[in-house]
Amino acid sequence: MNKAEELVDARITPAGRLDVLSKYEVNKLLDKSQGGLYNVFRNCCLAVLNCGNHMDDGKELLERYESFEIRVVQQQRGIKLAVNKAPASAFVDGKIIRGINEHLFAVLRDVVYISDEITDNPHYDINTSDGVTNAVFHILRNANILRPMTNPRLVVCWGGHSISRQEYDYSKEVGYQLGLRGLDICTGCGPGAMKGPMKGATIGHAKQRIAMGQYLGITEPGIIAAESPNPIVNDLVIMPDIEKRLEAFVRTGHAIVVFPGGVGTAEEILFILGLLLHPDNNDLPYPVILTGPKDSADYFKGIDAFIGATLGSSAQQRYQIIIDDPVLVAREAVAGIEKVKQFRKDLSDAYYFNWVLKIEHEFQRPFTPTHDNMRNLELHKNQEVHLLAAHLRRAFSGIVSGNVKDEGIRSIEEHGLFEIRGEKSITDALDGLLASFVAQQRMKLPTKEYKPCYRIIK
Amino acid sequence: MNKAEELVDARITPAGRLDVLSKYEVNKLLDKSQGGLYNVFRNCCLAVLNCGNHMDDGKELLERYESFEIRVVQQQRGIKLAVNKAPASAFVDGKIIRGINEHLFAVLRDVVYISDEITDNPHYDINTSDGVTNAVFHILRNANILRPMTNPRLVVCWGGHSISRQEYDYSKEVGYQLGLRGLDICTGCGPGAMKGPMKGATIGHAKQRIAMGQYLGITEPGIIAAESPNPIVNDLVIMPDIEKRLEAFVRTGHAIVVFPGGVGTAEEILFILGLLLHPDNNDLPYPVILTGPKDSADYFKGIDAFIGATLGSSAQQRYQIIIDDPVLVAREAVAGIEKVKQFRKDLSDAYYFNWVLKIEHEFQRPFTPTHDNMRNLELHKNQEVHLLAAHLRRAFSGIVSGNVKDEGIRSIEEHGLFEIRGEKSITDALDGLLASFVAQQRMKLPTKEYKPCYRIIK
Amino acid sequence: MNKAEELVDARITPAGRLDVLSKYEVNKLLDKSQGGLYNVFRNCCLAVLNCGNHMDDGKELLERYESFEIRVVQQQRGIKLAVNKAPASAFVDGKIIRGINEHLFAVLRDVVYISDEITDNPHYDINTSDGVTNAVFHILRNANILRPMTNPRLVVCWGGHSISRQEYDYSKEVGYQLGLRGLDICTGCGPGAMKGPMKGATIGHAKQRIAMGQYLGITEPGIIAAESPNPIVNDLVIMPDIEKRLEAFVRTGHAIVVFPGGVGTAEEILFILGLLLHPDNNDLPYPVILTGPKDSADYFKGIDAFIGATLGSSAQQRYQIIIDDPVLVAREAVAGIEKVKQFRKDLSDAYYFNWVLKIEHEFQRPFTPTHDNMRNLELHKNQEVHLLAAHLRRAFSGIVSGNVKDEGIRSIEEHGLFEIRGEKSITDALDGLLASFVAQQRMKLPTKEYKPCYRIIK
Amino acid sequence: MNKAEELVDARITPAGRLDVLSKYEVNKLLDKSQGGLYNVFRNCCLAVLNCGNHMDDGKELLERYESFEIRVVQQQRGIKLAVNKAPASAFVDGKIIRGINEHLFAVLRDVVYISDEITDNPHYDINTSDGVTNAVFHILRNANILRPMTNPRLVVCWGGHSISRQEYDYSKEVGYQLGLRGLDICTGCGPGAMKGPMKGATIGHAKQRIAMGQYLGITEPGIIAAESPNPIVNDLVIMPDIEKRLEAFVRTGHAIVVFPGGVGTAEEILFILGLLLHPDNNDLPYPVILTGPKDSADYFKGIDAFIGATLGSSAQQRYQIIIDDPVLVAREAVAGIEKVKQFRKDLSDAYYFNWVLKIEHEFQRPFTPTHDNMRNLELHKNQEVHLLAAHLRRAFSGIVSGNVKDEGIRSIEEHGLFEIRGEKSITDALDGLLASFVAQQRMKLPTKEYKPCYRIIK
Repeated sequence: MNKAEELVDARITPAGRLDVLSKYEVNKLLDKSQGGLYNVFRNCCLAVLNCGNHMDDGKELLERYESFEIRVVQQQRGIKLAVNKAPASAFVDGKIIRGINEHLFAVLRDVVYISDEITDNPHYDINTSDGVTNAVFHILRNANILRPMTNPRLVVCWGGHSISRQEYDYSKEVGYQLGLRGLDICTGCGPGAMKGPMKGATIGHAKQRIAMGQYLGITEPGIIAAESPNPIVNDLVIMPDIEKRLEAFVRTGHAIVVFPGGVGTAEEILFILGLLLHPDNNDLPYPVILTGPKDSADYFKGIDAFIGATLGSSAQQRYQIIIDDPVLVAREAVAGIEKVKQFRKDLSDAYYFNWVLKIEHEFQRPFTPTHDNMRNLELHKNQEVHLLAAHLRRAFSGIVSGNVKDEGIRSIEEHGLFEIRGEKSITDALDGLLASFVAQQRMKLPTKEYKPCYRIIK
Repeated sequence: MNKAEELVDARITPAGRLDVLSKYEVNKLLDKSQGGLYNVFRNCCLAVLNCGNHMDDGKELLERYESFEIRVVQQQRGIKLAVNKAPASAFVDGKIIRGINEHLFAVLRDVVYISDEITDNPHYDINTSDGVTNAVFHILRNANILRPMTNPRLVVCWGGHSISRQEYDYSKEVGYQLGLRGLDICTGCGPGAMKGPMKGATIGHAKQRIAMGQYLGITEPGIIAAESPNPIVNDLVIMPDIEKRLEAFVRTGHAIVVFPGGVGTAEEILFILGLLLHPDNNDLPYPVILTGPKDSADYFKGIDAFIGATLGSSAQQRYQIIIDDPVLVAREAVAGIEKVKQFRKDLSDAYYFNWVLKIEHEFQRPFTPTHDNMRNLELHKNQEVHLLAAHLRRAFSGIVSGNVKDEGIRSIEEHGLFEIRGEKSITDALDGLLASFVAQQRMKLPTKEYKPCYRIIK
Repeated sequence: MNKAEELVDARITPAGRLDVLSKYEVNKLLDKSQGGLYNVFRNCCLAVLNCGNHMDDGKELLERYESFEIRVVQQQRGIKLAVNKAPASAFVDGKIIRGINEHLFAVLRDVVYISDEITDNPHYDINTSDGVTNAVFHILRNANILRPMTNPRLVVCWGGHSISRQEYDYSKEVGYQLGLRGLDICTGCGPGAMKGPMKGATIGHAKQRIAMGQYLGITEPGIIAAESPNPIVNDLVIMPDIEKRLEAFVRTGHAIVVFPGGVGTAEEILFILGLLLHPDNNDLPYPVILTGPKDSADYFKGIDAFIGATLGSSAQQRYQIIIDDPVLVAREAVAGIEKVKQFRKDLSDAYYFNWVLKIEHEFQRPFTPTHDNMRNLELHKNQEVHLLAAHLRRAFSGIVSGNVKDEGIRSIEEHGLFEIRGEKSITDALDGLLASFVAQQRMKLPTKEYKPCYRIIK
Repeated sequence: MNKAEELVDARITPAGRLDVLSKYEVNKLLDKSQGGLYNVFRNCCLAVLNCGNHMDDGKELLERYESFEIRVVQQQRGIKLAVNKAPASAFVDGKIIRGINEHLFAVLRDVVYISDEITDNPHYDINTSDGVTNAVFHILRNANILRPMTNPRLVVCWGGHSISRQEYDYSKEVGYQLGLRGLDICTGCGPGAMKGPMKGATIGHAKQRIAMGQYLGITEPGIIAAESPNPIVNDLVIMPDIEKRLEAFVRTGHAIVVFPGGVGTAEEILFILGLLLHPDNNDLPYPVILTGPKDSADYFKGIDAFIGATLGSSAQQRYQIIIDDPVLVAREAVAGIEKVKQFRKDLSDAYYFNWVLKIEHEFQRPFTPTHDNMRNLELHKNQEVHLLAAHLRRAFSGIVSGNVKDEGIRSIEEHGLFEIRGEKSITDALDGLLASFVAQQRMKLPTKEYKPCYRIIK
């Protein structure tokens, strides 16, 4: 049995958080962490504890540590966590690594404690756009992530988790250049384009003697297991679901840098474009930079062509593509954020939360790619461009699901291909983009040959 | 018109608190501060702003600044306070004094913001002892007063507001000696024995280079107007009512020092004795020191005799009386707190909140001194001693009300004297104690001659 | 025997200073503190330890504690101080008060350690103006008093030590108003006008939540015994002599406020005027404010008249007199310091040390008031005004000495009256000013009736 | 021309150091930096500025930037550095990287400013052991490297600069394990085993949320050019020569970890053994750990055999060899440092400077490997073992010089082989060890075949 498989039992005292709790709150934690929330709580904690080890997927993780247990232990003075059969890599000479300790209590805070503050609370009407935004705000504030007295400097980095070594090194170099310029990094946690920029920024910050750099990880229970947060992450928040996670990204970030990835990355690009194309956001500055090394130029060429063909040149105005030039990426991020700062100053908007950004309620609700939903997508240009972006994102999401997700594949097997109605120019563009991803080996497809999961109906 | 009567209009930005608010919270503040809570909010703010000026009572304050207005102003980024015709003494060259700024936002936080978090919230069942304690805890924690990583060192100082110069100087010297030994001070805000210890401790802390000394003021809306918090107070909390204020004192403090005062002070002594005599608190260490200069010895002699005659020597064990020796007071406080620390450590109880102290629900509810309630007091020794203490405190409270409070006096005029049933030894002791207060000129009585407001029935 | 007369033996560990010493340095301290420097070292330490007790003069202090001893004790790790029969008031429950501990080690640093760094060091040629300034700079820097990153805000307060209660309260109020505006205080240590402004500023800083206010005391071995530094002083430096002490005042301060005093105060005013009237300092902004309560107006009226009659209106331009208006004093100090800041900024001069101020060497050398020196003073207007100011200051210094100092009085008894040559307008003005001081009871004269110690020769 | 060859002109303001200088000091800096010290000052600065670029040797650096110039510029307020034609890699968008800025001023401080404080100062008699130690102490204290209030935790890492990838990764992993346990790192700056442990510790510290980790680089003018300090180094000191650099290592460090290297590394091992074998150091705990990955085991096997054969088993007791177990290395370092702490505590010795370690004067003087000096080495066992160690180190140093250093090679060409007298067992061991280094390709030899530069004479 190698070291990663050793198991440890321990009691863990919270490091600086959750330390002033009332008896009532302690009891609530005890009840809920043992009750219905136990599984998600346990699995998130296991993911956090396992951060040192590299595995391909969350399933493997759960199987390897199936006897792992965690319990909240009451003390008059507060709480502790008792773990059994935990991965040894989280401990140094029997003492938990401080960064992992913090992540563990972030899980407790976000998964157990905050949950009923939001879900059971009439203050947060999640049937309205404002209500959802309010919930997102409270989760972030409770995680102590909103920093009121600092200038805008948070760059959200998106991109694929399993990218080439060359692309990973490039993302690290971009992070380094951002860090040298005093910018902070926010990612979705995990390997690849999520890890490179943080590692690079750490070196940049160290050289500039920036001790308080923020490395913000925003994840959610379904993602964390496969993508353990690196202990470099010094602010971790676990949002309740994917849509709130996306909203957290765009409301806390001041710029977005997108590295190459696969279909998920493309979908994220469509998400941010769908928001920025809303007429209310017309004048809102929001730097979006797509970037990669020379050999990855085709990826963004394909995406740019697709957007040009479907959403048109106004959509293409909302991002820039920079190939093989980390210094330029960092300079453009600095310049773009300067505009963001001026804009918020003029409006007296907070620097730490993008209140002004309009997000329509339908961007906040999950899209379930059923055959019916797919059939009813409106893929034509006879509508406002941000609405088309929303439909495209859903079409995209559905196709992706039909191609690669268990649920989607089974649904196709059972009910046949998705039927999509749409303008030929749009559906052709979709076909073309996905084909290019296949050619670039950016999709882990179950079969060697790409078989579309949809057909166009007239 | 002298300087104190100059009036200022200004917009005030919160100093470090209330700065990360959601839109929803800002709206709530706007609504509530202009709605039903406006009067209490306005009057508390006025009291805070007026701290530099000395007046005899709150009524005078309200009359002098009757045109004073305050409004919460919404900004995207947060909130400001707009004041009109405010006392000029709160400002330096047009800029509000930072300490007063903090107090102003403490009022906003406690009077407006926290109120419905507590009152409308089913989590806090104020019909149970635990529920009330929970509410007290949350108000204190929300005020950021509970300091988790510090050793016990908070001395609650009680005593009269209008005391002699000699007694005031003595309280200052005691505060100085406490400060020299690294102890912090908590009082009810206001002049006299509330101000002396803080001023003394400030000098003591400065000499010991203690920069983070805590000067905690605990007040409530009915008291603050007459007793403006001095800006030395660097932690201010406005509890919703007198009972929660008393509970806040005894749960946050680690020792109590009582200076001479009048009837109110005597009532406070009975309150803490009522708690400490509960059998559950038998082993709980809680240093209580009654102290004053040589000329004030009679005050405590009277109180001690009364307690001996009614509650017996076990009650007398729970406090010590030290006359004219500030150094000894400070040393005893240090020694007593050391025991408190050990006790909490052994029980893993928090240092910052006295969870273990048993407070029965009836100590948490206000006593209304009606003729019926007074008639039904059980002033006999045929019961547990802490129950007698509770009845005595109420008897005392009613007699005080009948003597000096508007409401009480009118009630006596209308319905005749209170009728009290009780053992002769107890009612005699009561008579004697009040007479001694009169002799010592510790009661501001409406008439020259002391006429008891009750009669003993057989 | 009362408390102040109790005696304590103790070993004292330095509080944060002098803690990284080489073996060589420790040995030097051991040697020198036991050798020729022992007496001055011992007496300065005794003065510091005695700060809590009030005595009329240093002689009484030395007599009361004649058995007091202090020794530097070597430890591998550094040093300690061993004291025997020290005043008990410096200790709390056997532990020295932290502020006094710091002052003790400031004495060791300045009196023992720095002395040969300066006196034996060829770098500092104290026969030149630059050399003396350099020495002053190094003593101050070694005392860690020069704060490079802060804005100008240090107000030097001068004035009498034995002033009226009204004047003391006024100086406290001025200090309070300065503190409220974020200004720091520098004085010569000791009671009266040296203590009032610091106490006032402490309250002002506390209300503005300024935790890092500087309370700088600049003293010298001959003065410290009579004027123990209050523990409020959180930066203490003991300059080698009176002239370097004066230079330290004017080079570190950004404004000077002069309260009423006696002859010494008048001499200090002449010193600063002598500097500011030098042509090289013509454009140098340096706010000088003479201020006192209403009843002290005559003091400054006399001084102003004297300066007008001797140095003329250009000298009167270099100060302003403000009577009975602490707020105005503080506002003018703020405004004046703003000009100082701009001036230094334009010249890239340091904020923390006034390099540009021209001080001629003769202002840096002590004046010994012998009969010869007095006879050779040039008290006529047929010279540059700053030279006349220098002679006047010396004349003044001599007269003061002849009137009140042991040495001077004996010299007069032995050799007869000082003989002064000068223009009548000038000698008349001198006579007049001294007479007014007598009338105002500002001189502690050995005889009831004022007998001049000089006579005018033609 | 690639980016590394771009050139930049700039004025640089010191970042937090050297900011409170007197006029006298500024003038001294101006004079000396332009005078005889210019070349060494300029070359050290160039090395620091070039840190981002990797070159094989210092000669290449000086040639590439031969037009580089640097000047100290006087300002009233202090100084700036003006650079011309500096490597662009030290700047980000025209602003110098903060860490490099600090290093630049460390050069100014140590090379220009401190030099005459030491060399011209009679306090430091470098003809005695104590005098040299005193000089080393003052240079380190002036560089603000001695941290009085911290526990022992500084691990000195030695080893080769051009090591294999595997060995580099191993040194990183050891640094990571040390960092996880809260230990700090000290190296000689530069690549290879000097860089790996710091990079590893950075990640370890980040995971443990240690913001104030010390990364101490100790270099000297002859070494810095070839081995630029990485900007991770946050405490840099440039000692005047190699011997003081070695003394700085052993007096500041609390443990030594030696990674594989070449001949220089072997010499360092002999240096520390020579010290530890001195009878006065018999009881002095000083953990020395030799460690490397599995494939490097032979390197240490050879060294261990050599030491056994020459100095015997008592010398072998003073180190331990750990192969391929970074966790064990870190645990042993922790355990060893715990003993060091206890030892210093018992002796009241400083934690920050190893005063007790005995270093004889001849270890402090450079050894010049002339033919005479080599002939007179005493390589026999008929002496105390620490004296043999000293001779062995010198023999070693001479042989190294004769093999690989310009000076040595030329000397051999001119005068023939070094002649060494010694016991056969010792000279055989020498031969064997060097042969094994050749076999392991640990020597960059000018010729393919190893030709000894010495011969044994009888």
